[in-house]
Amino acid sequence: MHPRLAELMRFLEEDLGYEDITTSSVLPEDVKALAEIVAKAQGVVAGVEEAKALLEHFNLRCRALKEDGEDINPGDVILEIEGSARAILMLERVVLNLLMRMSGIATATRRMVAIAQRYGVKIAGTRKTTPGFRYFEKRAIAIGGGDMHRFRLDDAVLIKDNHLVLVDIGEAIRRAKQVNFTKKVEVEVGSVEEAKVALEAGADIVMLDNLSVEEVEHVLTLVEQRGYQAIIEVSGGITPDNLESYAKLRPHVISTGYITTRAEWLDMSLRLRKR
Amino acid sequence: MHPRLAELMRFLEEDLGYEDITTSSVLPEDVKALAEIVAKAQGVVAGVEEAKALLEHFNLRCRALKEDGEDINPGDVILEIEGSARAILMLERVVLNLLMRMSGIATATRRMVAIAQRYGVKIAGTRKTTPGFRYFEKRAIAIGGGDMHRFRLDDAVLIKDNHLVLVDIGEAIRRAKQVNFTKKVEVEVGSVEEAKVALEAGADIVMLDNLSVEEVEHVLTLVEQRGYQAIIEVSGGITPDNLESYAKLRPHVISTGYITTRAEWLDMSLRLRKR
Amino acid sequence: MHPRLAELMRFLEEDLGYEDITTSSVLPEDVKALAEIVAKAQGVVAGVEEAKALLEHFNLRCRALKEDGEDINPGDVILEIEGSARAILMLERVVLNLLMRMSGIATATRRMVAIAQRYGVKIAGTRKTTPGFRYFEKRAIAIGGGDMHRFRLDDAVLIKDNHLVLVDIGEAIRRAKQVNFTKKVEVEVGSVEEAKVALEAGADIVMLDNLSVEEVEHVLTLVEQRGYQAIIEVSGGITPDNLESYAKLRPHVISTGYITTRAEWLDMSLRLRKR
Amino acid sequence: MHPRLAELMRFLEEDLGYEDITTSSVLPEDVKALAEIVAKAQGVVAGVEEAKALLEHFNLRCRALKEDGEDINPGDVILEIEGSARAILMLERVVLNLLMRMSGIATATRRMVAIAQRYGVKIAGTRKTTPGFRYFEKRAIAIGGGDMHRFRLDDAVLIKDNHLVLVDIGEAIRRAKQVNFTKKVEVEVGSVEEAKVALEAGADIVMLDNLSVEEVEHVLTLVEQRGYQAIIEVSGGITPDNLESYAKLRPHVISTGYITTRAEWLDMSLRLRKR
Amino acid sequence: MHPRLAELMRFLEEDLGYEDITTSSVLPEDVKALAEIVAKAQGVVAGVEEAKALLEHFNLRCRALKEDGEDINPGDVILEIEGSARAILMLERVVLNLLMRMSGIATATRRMVAIAQRYGVKIAGTRKTTPGFRYFEKRAIAIGGGDMHRFRLDDAVLIKDNHLVLVDIGEAIRRAKQVNFTKKVEVEVGSVEEAKVALEAGADIVMLDNLSVEEVEHVLTLVEQRGYQAIIEVSGGITPDNLESYAKLRPHVISTGYITTRAEWLDMSLRLRKR
Amino acid sequence: MHPRLAELMRFLEEDLGYEDITTSSVLPEDVKALAEIVAKAQGVVAGVEEAKALLEHFNLRCRALKEDGEDINPGDVILEIEGSARAILMLERVVLNLLMRMSGIATATRRMVAIAQRYGVKIAGTRKTTPGFRYFEKRAIAIGGGDMHRFRLDDAVLIKDNHLVLVDIGEAIRRAKQVNFTKKVEVEVGSVEEAKVALEAGADIVMLDNLSVEEVEHVLTLVEQRGYQAIIEVSGGITPDNLESYAKLRPHVISTGYITTRAEWLDMSLRLRKR
Repeated sequence: MHPRLAELMRFLEEDLGYEDITTSSVLPEDVKALAEIVAKAQGVVAGVEEAKALLEHFNLRCRALKEDGEDINPGDVILEIEGSARAILMLERVVLNLLMRMSGIATATRRMVAIAQRYGVKIAGTRKTTPGFRYFEKRAIAIGGGDMHRFRLDDAVLIKDNHLVLVDIGEAIRRAKQVNFTKKVEVEVGSVEEAKVALEAGADIVMLDNLSVEEVEHVLTLVEQRGYQAIIEVSGGITPDNLESYAKLRPHVISTGYITTRAEWLDMSLRLRKR
Repeated sequence: MHPRLAELMRFLEEDLGYEDITTSSVLPEDVKALAEIVAKAQGVVAGVEEAKALLEHFNLRCRALKEDGEDINPGDVILEIEGSARAILMLERVVLNLLMRMSGIATATRRMVAIAQRYGVKIAGTRKTTPGFRYFEKRAIAIGGGDMHRFRLDDAVLIKDNHLVLVDIGEAIRRAKQVNFTKKVEVEVGSVEEAKVALEAGADIVMLDNLSVEEVEHVLTLVEQRGYQAIIEVSGGITPDNLESYAKLRPHVISTGYITTRAEWLDMSLRLRKR
Repeated sequence: MHPRLAELMRFLEEDLGYEDITTSSVLPEDVKALAEIVAKAQGVVAGVEEAKALLEHFNLRCRALKEDGEDINPGDVILEIEGSARAILMLERVVLNLLMRMSGIATATRRMVAIAQRYGVKIAGTRKTTPGFRYFEKRAIAIGGGDMHRFRLDDAVLIKDNHLVLVDIGEAIRRAKQVNFTKKVEVEVGSVEEAKVALEAGADIVMLDNLSVEEVEHVLTLVEQRGYQAIIEVSGGITPDNLESYAKLRPHVISTGYITTRAEWLDMSLRLRKR
Repeated sequence: MHPRLAELMRFLEEDLGYEDITTSSVLPEDVKALAEIVAKAQGVVAGVEEAKALLEHFNLRCRALKEDGEDINPGDVILEIEGSARAILMLERVVLNLLMRMSGIATATRRMVAIAQRYGVKIAGTRKTTPGFRYFEKRAIAIGGGDMHRFRLDDAVLIKDNHLVLVDIGEAIRRAKQVNFTKKVEVEVGSVEEAKVALEAGADIVMLDNLSVEEVEHVLTLVEQRGYQAIIEVSGGITPDNLESYAKLRPHVISTGYITTRAEWLDMSLRLRKR
Repeated sequence: MHPRLAELMRFLEEDLGYEDITTSSVLPEDVKALAEIVAKAQGVVAGVEEAKALLEHFNLRCRALKEDGEDINPGDVILEIEGSARAILMLERVVLNLLMRMSGIATATRRMVAIAQRYGVKIAGTRKTTPGFRYFEKRAIAIGGGDMHRFRLDDAVLIKDNHLVLVDIGEAIRRAKQVNFTKKVEVEVGSVEEAKVALEAGADIVMLDNLSVEEVEHVLTLVEQRGYQAIIEVSGGITPDNLESYAKLRPHVISTGYITTRAEWLDMSLRLRKR
Repeated sequence: MHPRLAELMRFLEEDLGYEDITTSSVLPEDVKALAEIVAKAQGVVAGVEEAKALLEHFNLRCRALKEDGEDINPGDVILEIEGSARAILMLERVVLNLLMRMSGIATATRRMVAIAQRYGVKIAGTRKTTPGFRYFEKRAIAIGGGDMHRFRLDDAVLIKDNHLVLVDIGEAIRRAKQVNFTKKVEVEVGSVEEAKVALEAGADIVMLDNLSVEEVEHVLTLVEQRGYQAIIEVSGGITPDNLESYAKLRPHVISTGYITTRAEWLDMSLRLRKR
């Protein structure tokens, strides 16, 4: 039982409406078929659990040849499906959309992880996710080897530039540390000076937002010299192109919206055969 | 009243959880603020109606300086917002996600439309949309000047390759034409030969899937010579790079998943000021 | 798995509330029973798929002796059910309501279809359906041999008298044809003159609303003489009494609200036996 | 605030889908209009509260010229509406469906009430209602002057023939009286003999199901002679034709599915004018 | 199939959020375990059906050693569970919360029932229940041997002090008796005088609210002498301490919010073992 | 706009069903009234925001004389309400249930906070909350001055005894620290020995579960001597009676289920007056 089955069913309803009028007019009710979901590009597959949950809910037999997180290449069969042709065709698009979007994110994540982990640095996502689909995008990040970062506004404090327009940074951290002892307090800073204040005020995580390589280096040196316990997160405009220049500095984490806002879908198709 | 307000509220719940623990710990309840949503890239804005509906639902005053579909440039202010600082910060991310994803799609669409319309050709989307967010992605396509194509499996018949594995093309069209006289019957064909059969069988729309420029030209000539009434849709692997080569042939429509699966988000930010 | 199971469950909740206080106070938990759903009138059965989906969801064994669309006569057993007496009695009313309402519509539809098809004419429903129950009423129309017509406001354009108060008919058709190439454009006209304009403007479907037999004949002659491709739909006040006079003229389709707004429920009952 | 607004909005979603593609393509966004909902048949109006709630939710100004329960005649204006033409046209069908179905039931109810109340007898509905729409059908019964009877399986005990297959009538009543002291216990009986047992066992309500006029008379005499406190409800196959023959005997209540399963919709239309 | 499974799943979602990040990080996916739910206090168990429904929905095998309503003592095993360790740990808290809250109420109810039934008096609950959880609290009352009283505002009339501020008691009862013949009419009275009026006006149930023992005795004597058929319910500030003084007078029912607003949870724990 | 308004409306639906049949039968539609919600016990009020949101949604004017978190005494007026008598009476119970349950929890929390804060110690809740009502119970804890602790299984890691049956404590902490850098890692330990391992392994929070006063003292000494950064949380069987003995030792936090599982509702009533 997938705990998100109700949500997966809403995705189907979105795509289905009344019924698949093509399939129900064109095919008899009792035709059985075999189908394969085949990769058309290279990358990391994600969404296999979700695809299976939906297919099996309609009594289709599934065999996963690739599990979430495995590498795939063009031509690789990811899932074999067997059962009612009408059910397979009704589910085709929603299953492919899940797999292609999630695999696209997992693939983009894995590529950045591959660079960062050479330096022992983690890649993390952000809250820049498609509304209504965040759970699945965060899960794809995890499958790609990334850190999911905050799920919502309530699972960690993150004091940002817009907060600091209205309240002093030190005071903000002091207040935030009172709020809930099970939550970490993170602060986004825009300069080396702000970083110092945040570190001194005892933030659990300091996010260096849009700092230059030199500035980041400066902060990391400071952290090491003074023995601050804070986690240092680098963020702001990170792409595969500039990632290594920051990763080399060995901050704890590099977070990026790139893996959700600029990841392309990983292309796949469903091939059906008579049975 | 936005007819999708309940859905927009679910997007907020997804991002909010219990509450915005940062803002509620850091800011007093009664602080008022001004904010601007500012473009950081060039493109076409979309999602303004949705953003306003959500912001106004929380009693924030909004003024749209750019309406859905207008061109924007880096630095342009799209929306001015005034009211409770806590409410603005609680809604910031979900509003930006709506605007950035929708504007990204509108922008990608507009760029392809700009090329295609020189030849009097329409650009259309597909059903390759993010699960749970299709309405908003389709709306962004429309805002960008594209045709929304099918909303769901039930609003037009579309006989595809996988149907044709199980049933003969002529027979499929004949059956489909019986199903509902208010729905068009479209057929996806993979060769000139199949296109001929589909045209002869009276399909309302014939989609040429992954045909070469030469093959498309061949079919279009045929259509003209024999006076078929069918709409010719070209599809399969269309990108900004190869679009013009197909558009020049003047099919009625070119459809592409590119504008939803490969569109990058259009970057924006929210800037807050004390009031 | 019925794709509408969640909706069927809401129908049960509507009828159930907390619990079936009669059955749970009167019968022990472990009593098993057999039951039959028996027709008490003549007609066409519809709703069998939905009834089975709900009964089987509560682990009751079902055997359908009549499938959706079959003729039934008083005394005919439609479904045999076996299992927990409490479950059968809890579901009795909601299952009968589904079957009786849907069969009533299927029966009324079939009666009109029987007349119209002698002349090769289709019978279609309208959007005059009970709020919250449209899917099932449309399905009953299809089971009765009718055409479901539009499901919603978004799956075909239908320009009606109230639109034409505000916009010129030719202009309206021209605008509508731009909106979405996968949707047909239908126009409702109230006179022969309007019909001519609509045909000339290229409407896919022209609905003759409340035209006399003579007027309809006039329009059909015109269509034939001038070779218009449009589908001609006759509508407005069609009942079993005046149906044949219009059907004889052989329009493509006759649509009517009669089959949903004036169809009587087809009477049935559930008979229980000890096991 | 209508407490069922969320449900009314779901009815709109059912009819709307993505958007009213006709109106949004044919009319500019800012056109204002006036509209009237006009009766096309004689009867009792119901659903005005619901219609207003939905219309006003979309910022349309409404003036009810007829309130729920008033008599209407062909040509009577029920509601005047003013505001966005697009909003009026988007809501037209769902508002008419609510008003026409509810008014049809109220009208059928009122006609039976008119006969029964001459003898001081109440007319009541049953649970034979359209799934998903019961609240509104029950409300229409009340508006027509009828008694709503049970809302659900949990608000009164009703021991029926199928229960009595499995348990003795006296024992069933005894058990049911234990279950919840705030709920009445009703028993459906199929003969004078059963009626005697039910009366003796202390049922709060005895429903005489499908008894002849003579049998009903027999039971009522018995009730009077022996001073039973039970309410006597006559049911089973009651129509406007045979109603008076039973009403004359002056049972307390006559219940009938006729008013929900055989009531025709009361015809209305919406007439729009430019403003 | 538990008819409330959808609601039980919402309870899980409330506790789960994205996923059980502890268990999924700490345990491999395929670890199997055994678990026991063990009582840590003495009382009456309730919620076993609900716990099983949820556990079995996630493919865990369950064996109930104690059924709803059975006495339990510290150390008693209530449920044995076997299957995926991850699933057991994900469900642990929500299952314990259901069982502990429901058992607490059943236990408090049983203790009051034990006193009252010596005098042939029923104990009933009230509508003072936790919002969102009423069904389960009412069910726990029934499991503890109590009467569930009204489920909602619609299943029996209850005229209270605040109504009587605005309308005369006799008139209120007269109006209420017209409303729905399947519903009982109860009146809350605050004095012997009001009780007399209510009895004379024919209330089905008279609730003596906050009357002294002497006053209650006075009313009961009156009822007996004059042969009123009304049920007498004593209410207002009833606790285990003063219950017997009222029960001795043998009213029909004593209702109390104590069993929902002051019942402590019955402590339990889940013990896991490797398999 | 209360972000949880949809949930508050579900609470109303739970209490309302079809309608308030008492009020709608007994009172005319247009009666206006004033009402006061009055405390009948001493404590801390909570739920005022929620009560107002619901009342104002039905167009009732509200004036809060006590804000969330204020002390109240018997006789204190908390809210004044003005408007439709029917609306006030329809909402009475659900509003009182919200206020009484939430205030009960806030009151119990405040009492424990009053003791603990003398020693600079925080009081925190647990996940022992009523299913379906957690948000409101957690909010009541915050209003009472307590720490809300984890909202769900996903907002902090908490390794408990049942995890440690299956995996070694050091290994568990090591794995958990990999999972998400924005989440804290807490470990529940049952002995001084386990506490040492957890501290050494770098847990962010160590929960001492059911340790004696002496054992807790031992651990705290250790933490001080060795300079561990971990937060020490004392838990297990904490009541107002034994709280001070633990608080004196000055751990960082004491968490307790007492404030949700054993808090009594704070009694209130609504008093209505004619206007």
